[in-house]
Amino acid sequence: MNGYLILHGDIVEAPSFGKLNCVEYGYLVAKDGRIVGVYKDLPEEYEGQPVTDLAGSIIMPSFCDMHLHAPQYPLLGLGLDMQLLEWLETYTYPTEARFASNEYASRVYYAFAKDLINGGTTRVAAFSSIHKEATMILMDALERARVIGLVGKVNMDRNCPDYIREDTAKSLEDTEQWIIESRRKYRFVKPAITPRFIPTCSPELLDGLGKLAAKYNIPVQTHLSENSDEINLTRALSKEYAGYWHEYAQHGLFTEGALMAHCVYSDHMERSVMHERNVWAVHCPTANMDLSTGIMPVRRFVYEDINVALGSDVAGGAAIFMPRVIISAIRASKRNWLATARNERCLNMAEAFYLATSAGAKRLGYGGGFTPGDPLHCIVADDQRMCMADEGRSLRERFERLIYRMQPADITHVWSEGERVK
Amino acid sequence: MNGYLILHGDIVEAPSFGKLNCVEYGYLVAKDGRIVGVYKDLPEEYEGQPVTDLAGSIIMPSFCDMHLHAPQYPLLGLGLDMQLLEWLETYTYPTEARFASNEYASRVYYAFAKDLINGGTTRVAAFSSIHKEATMILMDALERARVIGLVGKVNMDRNCPDYIREDTAKSLEDTEQWIIESRRKYRFVKPAITPRFIPTCSPELLDGLGKLAAKYNIPVQTHLSENSDEINLTRALSKEYAGYWHEYAQHGLFTEGALMAHCVYSDHMERSVMHERNVWAVHCPTANMDLSTGIMPVRRFVYEDINVALGSDVAGGAAIFMPRVIISAIRASKRNWLATARNERCLNMAEAFYLATSAGAKRLGYGGGFTPGDPLHCIVADDQRMCMADEGRSLRERFERLIYRMQPADITHVWSEGERVK
Repeated sequence: MNGYLILHGDIVEAPSFGKLNCVEYGYLVAKDGRIVGVYKDLPEEYEGQPVTDLAGSIIMPSFCDMHLHAPQYPLLGLGLDMQLLEWLETYTYPTEARFASNEYASRVYYAFAKDLINGGTTRVAAFSSIHKEATMILMDALERARVIGLVGKVNMDRNCPDYIREDTAKSLEDTEQWIIESRRKYRFVKPAITPRFIPTCSPELLDGLGKLAAKYNIPVQTHLSENSDEINLTRALSKEYAGYWHEYAQHGLFTEGALMAHCVYSDHMERSVMHERNVWAVHCPTANMDLSTGIMPVRRFVYEDINVALGSDVAGGAAIFMPRVIISAIRASKRNWLATARNERCLNMAEAFYLATSAGAKRLGYGGGFTPGDPLHCIVADDQRMCMADEGRSLRERFERLIYRMQPADITHVWSEGERVK
Repeated sequence: MNGYLILHGDIVEAPSFGKLNCVEYGYLVAKDGRIVGVYKDLPEEYEGQPVTDLAGSIIMPSFCDMHLHAPQYPLLGLGLDMQLLEWLETYTYPTEARFASNEYASRVYYAFAKDLINGGTTRVAAFSSIHKEATMILMDALERARVIGLVGKVNMDRNCPDYIREDTAKSLEDTEQWIIESRRKYRFVKPAITPRFIPTCSPELLDGLGKLAAKYNIPVQTHLSENSDEINLTRALSKEYAGYWHEYAQHGLFTEGALMAHCVYSDHMERSVMHERNVWAVHCPTANMDLSTGIMPVRRFVYEDINVALGSDVAGGAAIFMPRVIISAIRASKRNWLATARNERCLNMAEAFYLATSAGAKRLGYGGGFTPGDPLHCIVADDQRMCMADEGRSLRERFERLIYRMQPADITHVWSEGERVK
């Protein structure tokens, strides 16, 4: 990653929500692994540098998957005739329990990290299981594959089977040790405080986690207002219910930059607190459809200036490949448009692609699109098989078609944090 | 295809709606290209015959795509930020007009037929364009690839651009000639009367088509109650509107076995006439989502004992690969379940798989699942890459996961009409 890297091809980026920047047969210049700029014509100063000609391919930022469960990776596509709570009991908990074995964790997590890179996802916010050691193995696997982002050891001490329930004090002790160790050990993956969700976390546990988040100044990720049965359960468990958000807020877990997955049923009050505190919503449309949850009204969040990113929610969502999640987001929003009497405009491709790339990137400290100075996160996809008998399309049209039809095998190059990884 | 073919592996079939027959490591026996039976243990009489061991793969009936537009194949994944009528004008009509060139038709249709087989679809009901010769080329391509089913030369003589509008008399004359020629020439693909939809067909044209359908005793395929703007347009064009169905019925086009794509907005009256006359509904959930159309309430049709099959509706739907359409059908039905206050149960995998295989097969004269005596239509898919770290699943679970995660490359064998084609 020393020296210049100059990619010459059709470039697409979504630097801000709704803006798609298409540069036909342009140049993406990086130096020492960092982006210098995107140019229609190569500036004189770079003449003479080696150029990688990618004619007939599309160059774009790599994907950010801002909510997924790494230990559920073996379950991809299983049990989706069920809803959330039944699915957790039948499939998720028994599989997550297997991560008590480090051997099992290694077997799954190295394959998982490789699959992410293969599909062009270089940045994530991932849940692990309750196991401290397996969580370190997940971070090892991501770090070696050069997947950047946040990883959380999950906490849960109630309303779950014995075999996966933590003792409250031990859960907090494990979490603190893991924070200290992982912060020392990893460069690309950072710890995030990760209570599973309200039904499985006692107030004492949440309180301890809030204190750890504050003490070590690390971000929070969890679930919020996903499913109506889950919300009813949360309400029933609460002494003085003032909204799902409040269950987190009273323990210092509804804070700046927190990543809240789903937000399907967030009401006006919840959304206004999110906006005020800059709490992020992570939209997981595939999972919302697969677990019969409902549709998050993304457009309303955008109108209200709440930050939104996209997540696969593997394995509540049956796809790890982010273009599938982009399409799910568009399809869900079209349904929402009809359901709101054509009031809330659906997402177009430019907007959904922004959510799957720049939005998550911004949360992780990067700029939008190919921002000069940022480490290079980039994929190259060959769409020539899709151009059959359909000449003369604009780059914008080819890009849309590519997202709809892409498979991992169409991705020929991936750079993560400045280094080529596929 | 002479002699015995014995496939030994995990077998799944959906012989009737809701019934999934799973035979772990069983035997599918065929003789001279026709199915003999499915067995848990190989009957004595077949001992000594060569057995193809497919351990670790799943054997199932091939897919039936009962509504798709062959000339829209180059458009797969394009223009889906639009709705139906705008999309037709911007993308569909200009592309369909290109099929005036036989060279263009050959280029597209041979690739199209190959793609169908590659994805395990061996039976179809396909729309062509208005062009008689290109329609013959499509039938050539399907016949050679051994794709079985119905093909229709499209008719349209109003409310469309000049460059693709037919003269009414010429349209009928071309259609009759094409019926005579194609019935003489093809063994596996048969003509179907195919008015595009009410907005583009004058009463005179519909009348002539109804007479041709009766004269040659051939089936009808068209669109019904897809999109609310389209329905409003149909109503505005009608002198005495008595329902979308009635526009066809008064010209003899709403008859036994007719295939009506979409039926998103079919009301009680329309459905009751469909039931009475055994008119089929073809559910196209991917297209309904991609063109923001709405959701066909499949469960209601099933309750009312109306025949339903599944269609990709390429290219209103962005996927030609039928497992994606199965998943879309399940997802749409989950949304419908929520939208009907949890009243209309969603489709489960067994039901949706039936719609994608046996339902269409029955319409084309086969039995459901692997019916003894039927020509063999069958695919084999290897799911071993999906079993990673997830041992001990039942065949039913592996099958569900396979449908969610399958790609065409996972299909290792395809038989169509008794002959191996992949």
